[in-house]
Amino acid sequence: MKSDKVMLFFSPKAVAVIGANKESNKIGHVIFRNMLESFKGDVFPVNPSAAEILGKKSYKTVNEIPHKVDVAVIVVPASAVPKVMEQCGRKKVKGCVIISSGFAETGNDKLERRVAEIAREHKISVIGPNCLGVFDPYSGIDALFLSKYKMARPEKGNISFITQSGAVGASVLDWMAYEGLGFSKFISYGNAMDIGDADMLEFLGNDQNTKVIVMYLEGTKDGRKLMEVARHVSRKKPIIVMKSGRTCEGTRAAKSHTASLAGEDLVYDAAFRQSGMIRADTIVDAINYAKAFVGQVLPKGNRILVITNGGGFGVMATDAIIGNGLCMAELNKNNGLELASKLPPYAAVRNPLDLVGDADTRRYKHALDYAAKDRSVDAVLCMILLQTVNLDADVVEVITEFSNLNAKPIVVCALGGDYTKVNTRTLERAGIPCYKDPSTAARTLAVMSNYAGFRQKN
Amino acid sequence: MKSDKVMLFFSPKAVAVIGANKESNKIGHVIFRNMLESFKGDVFPVNPSAAEILGKKSYKTVNEIPHKVDVAVIVVPASAVPKVMEQCGRKKVKGCVIISSGFAETGNDKLERRVAEIAREHKISVIGPNCLGVFDPYSGIDALFLSKYKMARPEKGNISFITQSGAVGASVLDWMAYEGLGFSKFISYGNAMDIGDADMLEFLGNDQNTKVIVMYLEGTKDGRKLMEVARHVSRKKPIIVMKSGRTCEGTRAAKSHTASLAGEDLVYDAAFRQSGMIRADTIVDAINYAKAFVGQVLPKGNRILVITNGGGFGVMATDAIIGNGLCMAELNKNNGLELASKLPPYAAVRNPLDLVGDADTRRYKHALDYAAKDRSVDAVLCMILLQTVNLDADVVEVITEFSNLNAKPIVVCALGGDYTKVNTRTLERAGIPCYKDPSTAARTLAVMSNYAGFRQKN
Repeated sequence: MKSDKVMLFFSPKAVAVIGANKESNKIGHVIFRNMLESFKGDVFPVNPSAAEILGKKSYKTVNEIPHKVDVAVIVVPASAVPKVMEQCGRKKVKGCVIISSGFAETGNDKLERRVAEIAREHKISVIGPNCLGVFDPYSGIDALFLSKYKMARPEKGNISFITQSGAVGASVLDWMAYEGLGFSKFISYGNAMDIGDADMLEFLGNDQNTKVIVMYLEGTKDGRKLMEVARHVSRKKPIIVMKSGRTCEGTRAAKSHTASLAGEDLVYDAAFRQSGMIRADTIVDAINYAKAFVGQVLPKGNRILVITNGGGFGVMATDAIIGNGLCMAELNKNNGLELASKLPPYAAVRNPLDLVGDADTRRYKHALDYAAKDRSVDAVLCMILLQTVNLDADVVEVITEFSNLNAKPIVVCALGGDYTKVNTRTLERAGIPCYKDPSTAARTLAVMSNYAGFRQKN
Repeated sequence: MKSDKVMLFFSPKAVAVIGANKESNKIGHVIFRNMLESFKGDVFPVNPSAAEILGKKSYKTVNEIPHKVDVAVIVVPASAVPKVMEQCGRKKVKGCVIISSGFAETGNDKLERRVAEIAREHKISVIGPNCLGVFDPYSGIDALFLSKYKMARPEKGNISFITQSGAVGASVLDWMAYEGLGFSKFISYGNAMDIGDADMLEFLGNDQNTKVIVMYLEGTKDGRKLMEVARHVSRKKPIIVMKSGRTCEGTRAAKSHTASLAGEDLVYDAAFRQSGMIRADTIVDAINYAKAFVGQVLPKGNRILVITNGGGFGVMATDAIIGNGLCMAELNKNNGLELASKLPPYAAVRNPLDLVGDADTRRYKHALDYAAKDRSVDAVLCMILLQTVNLDADVVEVITEFSNLNAKPIVVCALGGDYTKVNTRTLERAGIPCYKDPSTAARTLAVMSNYAGFRQKN
């Protein structure tokens, strides 16, 4: 099973970095240092002309290493890769991450085929070439060639990310770390010479630490297989895909980038839908959706209650909910009367439920208690304008309590500066996704509701 | 001219805060303190039962103040507003900002009409009621009822914002301050009893500190007049409008919020287009557009050059440019050859121009020199992935130089964490708008290009 072939990259006992370097500005140095700092197993540098690197004895070839090596990270020039792969074959290395570029993506198909043959011959699984590497905060694998001061690493968590583009991967990881979103496994697979999108998807489908899978795709080599695996995995966990190359011009650009044939966009669109994959229009939206899926339960229907302390945002949210094909929940009369008795007379009980500009945390508590109880509410879009006089930061606790105790999802919308940011970060650490704009919040709820529908049917 | 009626709120010599309060949690206290701290003229507290507030002698009524009063900010209960307005009339106060709510928006049309009559009788201009207030960092007017620790104030700048919703206004101001975007004038006008959207628009059209106008609109009382003024002002400066109440459900919500009749959305849409107004789908996009207009020149056409150091983002940008109705610039052959001679062979000279993952600042300099020179390029979408090994922060200087020296707009796309944020903030302070996603950057360029087309024809 190809899935096992992926597994070995995340559970090696010993890793060699072939092309490790003494000079700190070389990527062979950066990868070796990152591995040394975070990997829990053994790491060996391989370099024909260095005696030691960062205090570790260096080897001329992988074959000289007096230990078993499970995985090799290869950062030598493209032309040297076949030789190095032969050496790995003799060493019985099971998996190679080929970071090096200069293969099919630059028209060098022949070299890529030759490396593929060597890999097959020696039964070596390959990630890459022309990729950024792999990362896993659980095992400490960090074969990324980017320094931590420029690209932060996310903490342990439950979102995994497969990407055809290294640059997209790097910026998403960096941004996720900044936003405090937890991470499971990262694979940048570049030209996908051996291990492809479907293999990785299958592996992540079985990975216990992965609750949500995000993919950045420019094209695929075996669409049928990808969709088959996706349909299977989608029944267990959401797969969010950002597919570029939508336009003819974009497709041409993609072809020169990762040598993948981007097909007709409508075909992809239909295939994604059929296999339960969730398409995001932008990479930022992909992460917006992922953080909701990872922290919240799926809604049982599409009836949304909007709670706000600012009328304008209530109007915007209403537009966005209807515009995204969701419904505004119709409030139950009896429960509504009970809620009304707890709110001031000028805060009319309807949907959007405007708690009005002088709302305090208690009013939010009443509104959320109501939302928990009323069967006509499937999910809550909760706006908190923390700039207002009476709303204190403890509203965060009331929202967290709702999220923890109830089987209904809640998403938060809050636009503002430092004071708002501090509080939305607290919420996000507790699994409650926060958005700047009601439109993004509503779109996310729509995506959750659609996926919930797929799961009910599959 | 009604425009003068607006002017007086931003150039008073003396302001009375009627309903000023000793208790720090009262909005009458917050407004008085904010005015005291930042306004350059005289500020007088009015409160029937306090002898002094924040060390300033307090007056029982505005009539007791032994000085001329130009503007009064009114924060008394709705029922007391008529009496207070009569007193202002006798005092020859020229303008009142009525913060108080409890008028037409809660069905109390009669009270609102009475106040309007008093205002007419005494020739008092009125902003509000049911509003957040006015703010102007140039004159120091800060009649907002929100504390600075919860809602930061932007620095002086050239974006002005008119909003029907106070909450939307508060969160936008707070967010703009956080993002370091400069500000000119803010008016939250609530129920628009007297001074309406068109009056404010006309005023801002003539305001030297205002280069870009942003409006949040739920509906209007005199659409014809608004569009007439907008058409006139649009010829001088861009007006970006975020209009909510797009759907029937949203319209209903808007009606209960600011008592405005939201009309058919398609009618608005056509009217905005005819009058050169720029419609933003979300409030976040409105500010995204505003920061581009305020810092960059208008493009002379719609041919965009994409520069990137990450292929994936180049593909996304291409999709977004085509998807937004713009063109990918076709590069001039001779200039292209010159550029090619300065780049490594694996960085092919085409559009998107992929400087490849190992690009340094010098490669960006070459690419931008080319963009400046080539007549087939109308605008630049420049991606900078600051996570990469060779790209240092000095790329910021090269981009700033391009922006300062050339009559072509540039927008930047950079997704990442702290290191990226530090650098995008430097760029934004220099007037170069930065976005997380190529899609937002391209949409912004499309909006600029469309507006440039309107200006050429009008």
